[in-house]
Amino acid sequence: MQFTAQQIGILLDGSVDGNPEDTVNQLAKIEDAQSGSLSFLANPKYEHFIYQTNASIVIVNKDFVASGPIKPTLIRVENAYTAFSLLLQQYNSIKLNKKGIEEPCYIHPSAKIGKDVYIGAFAYIGADVVLGDHSKIYPQVYLGDNSSVGSGCTLFSGVKIYHDCQIGSNVIIHAGSVIGSDGFGFAPLEDGSYGKISQIGNVIIEDDVEIGSNTSIDRATMGSTIIKKGVKLDNLIQIAHNVEIGSNTVIASQAGVSGSTKIGPQSVIGGQVGIVGHINIAKGSQIQAQSGINRAIVEEDKKWAGSPASSFNDQMRAQVIFNRLPEMQRKIDELERKLKEFTK
Amino acid sequence: MQFTAQQIGILLDGSVDGNPEDTVNQLAKIEDAQSGSLSFLANPKYEHFIYQTNASIVIVNKDFVASGPIKPTLIRVENAYTAFSLLLQQYNSIKLNKKGIEEPCYIHPSAKIGKDVYIGAFAYIGADVVLGDHSKIYPQVYLGDNSSVGSGCTLFSGVKIYHDCQIGSNVIIHAGSVIGSDGFGFAPLEDGSYGKISQIGNVIIEDDVEIGSNTSIDRATMGSTIIKKGVKLDNLIQIAHNVEIGSNTVIASQAGVSGSTKIGPQSVIGGQVGIVGHINIAKGSQIQAQSGINRAIVEEDKKWAGSPASSFNDQMRAQVIFNRLPEMQRKIDELERKLKEFTK
Amino acid sequence: MQFTAQQIGILLDGSVDGNPEDTVNQLAKIEDAQSGSLSFLANPKYEHFIYQTNASIVIVNKDFVASGPIKPTLIRVENAYTAFSLLLQQYNSIKLNKKGIEEPCYIHPSAKIGKDVYIGAFAYIGADVVLGDHSKIYPQVYLGDNSSVGSGCTLFSGVKIYHDCQIGSNVIIHAGSVIGSDGFGFAPLEDGSYGKISQIGNVIIEDDVEIGSNTSIDRATMGSTIIKKGVKLDNLIQIAHNVEIGSNTVIASQAGVSGSTKIGPQSVIGGQVGIVGHINIAKGSQIQAQSGINRAIVEEDKKWAGSPASSFNDQMRAQVIFNRLPEMQRKIDELERKLKEFTK
Repeated sequence: MQFTAQQIGILLDGSVDGNPEDTVNQLAKIEDAQSGSLSFLANPKYEHFIYQTNASIVIVNKDFVASGPIKPTLIRVENAYTAFSLLLQQYNSIKLNKKGIEEPCYIHPSAKIGKDVYIGAFAYIGADVVLGDHSKIYPQVYLGDNSSVGSGCTLFSGVKIYHDCQIGSNVIIHAGSVIGSDGFGFAPLEDGSYGKISQIGNVIIEDDVEIGSNTSIDRATMGSTIIKKGVKLDNLIQIAHNVEIGSNTVIASQAGVSGSTKIGPQSVIGGQVGIVGHINIAKGSQIQAQSGINRAIVEEDKKWAGSPASSFNDQMRAQVIFNRLPEMQRKIDELERKLKEFTK
Repeated sequence: MQFTAQQIGILLDGSVDGNPEDTVNQLAKIEDAQSGSLSFLANPKYEHFIYQTNASIVIVNKDFVASGPIKPTLIRVENAYTAFSLLLQQYNSIKLNKKGIEEPCYIHPSAKIGKDVYIGAFAYIGADVVLGDHSKIYPQVYLGDNSSVGSGCTLFSGVKIYHDCQIGSNVIIHAGSVIGSDGFGFAPLEDGSYGKISQIGNVIIEDDVEIGSNTSIDRATMGSTIIKKGVKLDNLIQIAHNVEIGSNTVIASQAGVSGSTKIGPQSVIGGQVGIVGHINIAKGSQIQAQSGINRAIVEEDKKWAGSPASSFNDQMRAQVIFNRLPEMQRKIDELERKLKEFTK
Repeated sequence: MQFTAQQIGILLDGSVDGNPEDTVNQLAKIEDAQSGSLSFLANPKYEHFIYQTNASIVIVNKDFVASGPIKPTLIRVENAYTAFSLLLQQYNSIKLNKKGIEEPCYIHPSAKIGKDVYIGAFAYIGADVVLGDHSKIYPQVYLGDNSSVGSGCTLFSGVKIYHDCQIGSNVIIHAGSVIGSDGFGFAPLEDGSYGKISQIGNVIIEDDVEIGSNTSIDRATMGSTIIKKGVKLDNLIQIAHNVEIGSNTVIASQAGVSGSTKIGPQSVIGGQVGIVGHINIAKGSQIQAQSGINRAIVEEDKKWAGSPASSFNDQMRAQVIFNRLPEMQRKIDELERKLKEFTK
């Protein structure tokens, strides 16, 4: 695909500053861009790159004033970052615009398949599955019996959705993630062994959720594990049975949430965080990477850190002193010595 | 499936207290139950729910005495929790009662397949594999050459068993878990690169083990990585080469056990725990979530916490003071100031 | 396969000390070896095993002098460990010498397939894929459109390579690992939801890299996430978008590297380590398990520990005192009491 500055200017409703016939055929960061690349400058911190870049066309904010000579053609728009993001999105929606049903795949006769879907080879669509319009089921995906996937979804290669689980619309799930495996529930028996507590619930994933690769979300013992609208989960995350994640909450890679815990909406959970079971985390909580949350968070919109976690500021102060512990011990020894001298 | 109170009473060997003709068609928690649901009350803590629930039938302990009016029909049994667990189990064993061989799947002519098995589409059964009776191999599972799976097992979609690995009977493995990938063994070479140490051992998983989703268990360099009878592993766990996990040990999500470590039986390991290699962990050890175990645990049946870990009680005491470090520093500064005044 | 001591002596360029007609048919550790096993002794620490072992043949260093009677036939070589490693490698290269194309598999007509490859059943090879000579693609692997895999690679069952990603030569990737899932990039919108930032870059994996099972490596937003020559990654690792891992760096299980961070060559990162985004880690850094790295590491070849991390020695000193905090508090209380008495 090749575009002129003029075409891009029209697409983005921007004005061209330079040669409207300059062409580009790829997107690149301004610092890496080669001739033939389209790039952008939004953050003034990176302004120096615009005087060195080999990009052929650069999208800038409308009010950008150059403080030196510039080689590329500029396209001036209301918001350079938003405009460029839009281009990335267009690029991918053209690139990943798969359709049709590849053979061999397995579609149970009772499954209901929507319009304009993609079903890749070796995908498995079980009994009574409902698959919405325009959804893409990549090769080797598994949709268990009676599961449902809404419209406009993308399930990448190897995603596994267990029976009875419900996926909303415009959901993206990356390769290797597992939705609906059994919750970890066992009852200790008298002989020291454990009896399995059957997990008959399901997982409900609401609209506009994105889930990274190799993440595990367990089905509820009874009822549902629920991932609410707009939640974004990174890779390798553990969501245990009967958990609820509030809308628009973001969780970074390798974090784990234990059973029956409810996380409020608009929260931000860092990487490798661990959260115990059976607690509530208030709306808007921000939890630093590697923290361990061992009790409920009641106050909204607060920052937390440490394992076990305390308020972010308290934790920062304590951590600073932790590093000075040897010095502190020397001072105490010195105080003891002096006081002893004194009391001789 | 629809059942009357009378039918359930007979099934559970309990007595019906209310209308024996009341019917239910689903199982639910007492606090969530709708009309037509069967629920249970075991823990007195939740007794208040029984006066509000919409459940049609509730299983209670034989000696339960109501302190107010109750709408649902009761079924009185020896142990309400056990009785309800049994129903969950029955429900799932009917629901997941898959049989037969779906096409296309790949079964090497030299494989020995037991009676009454389920083999899902796109499953791969390699050369010389032995698969026991009544086992269920879900779609897209891989059984490498010369691996074996006992009887009564369930391997959910996408499980990968490498060559030569041995799975016992009544084992459940959830989607995406990998058994028998190479141990992480490399020898540093003079040019700074690493030479691979070939891993020619295997993994042995004994009877009654359950393994969650996306867990990795590496094969031994030589000999076997062994998961003993009755072990329960959660999701996203790392078990390195030549590890041994003792019988009935339970490990929570995202924990990791390094190479050649042996964990005693009846231990409980929390989520995100890390354990170094080449050590023994005594029988009955209980390790708190996020702990880091960096040396052998010799005493049996003790609790540990922290990273690096110490005894649970010591760790709790130290953590309380950690949070008071800024206050402690102020006190030391004050002591120094006073003592200086004094010695003027 | 059965070999005589004489044959092995010739293969390893060693001298036979004992009966050259003794035969072996398996490899085993000296402490576990049964009759018919070939074993080795390299580390003097394990010398006592050679006087008890049931191994039929043991490889030893040329200069080994027995201090007691020995049953097995010895083969004396320059370096017993290296010689034995070589045998392990030969054993596996014969054992895993798969070739040919199993049916059914999906190979897009535009894909270019090299010579002497193995492609397992249910593998998916997308449009414009290039697969090098002698590479092994196990069952249920996915190679997305326009991805490439060099020569001499092994991708075990269920590996997923997204579109446009490039895998070098002699690369090993274990089951369930995902290369090229979307980076975790979202822009907060005014209504509290998040807009996806499309990830149009790729992942480049250079030659001689090995990647364990269930590891996730995200594609770059633009440009490439790069895993350089000779890197060894363990299981369940998270590599975020636009990360670069320097050559011959080794990362243990369950570690995570956040977006745009660059790790220098020859580094060693322990298990469950977390590293924040947008920083550089100097060449030769050694980071202890469970550490949290929250800022750049500038000095080369240093050891780090703790979360947040400090220099290894400082951290060790502080941790020792952490365990003595209750004692330290008692001392401070005592000092305050004494000083008060004094100033009465």
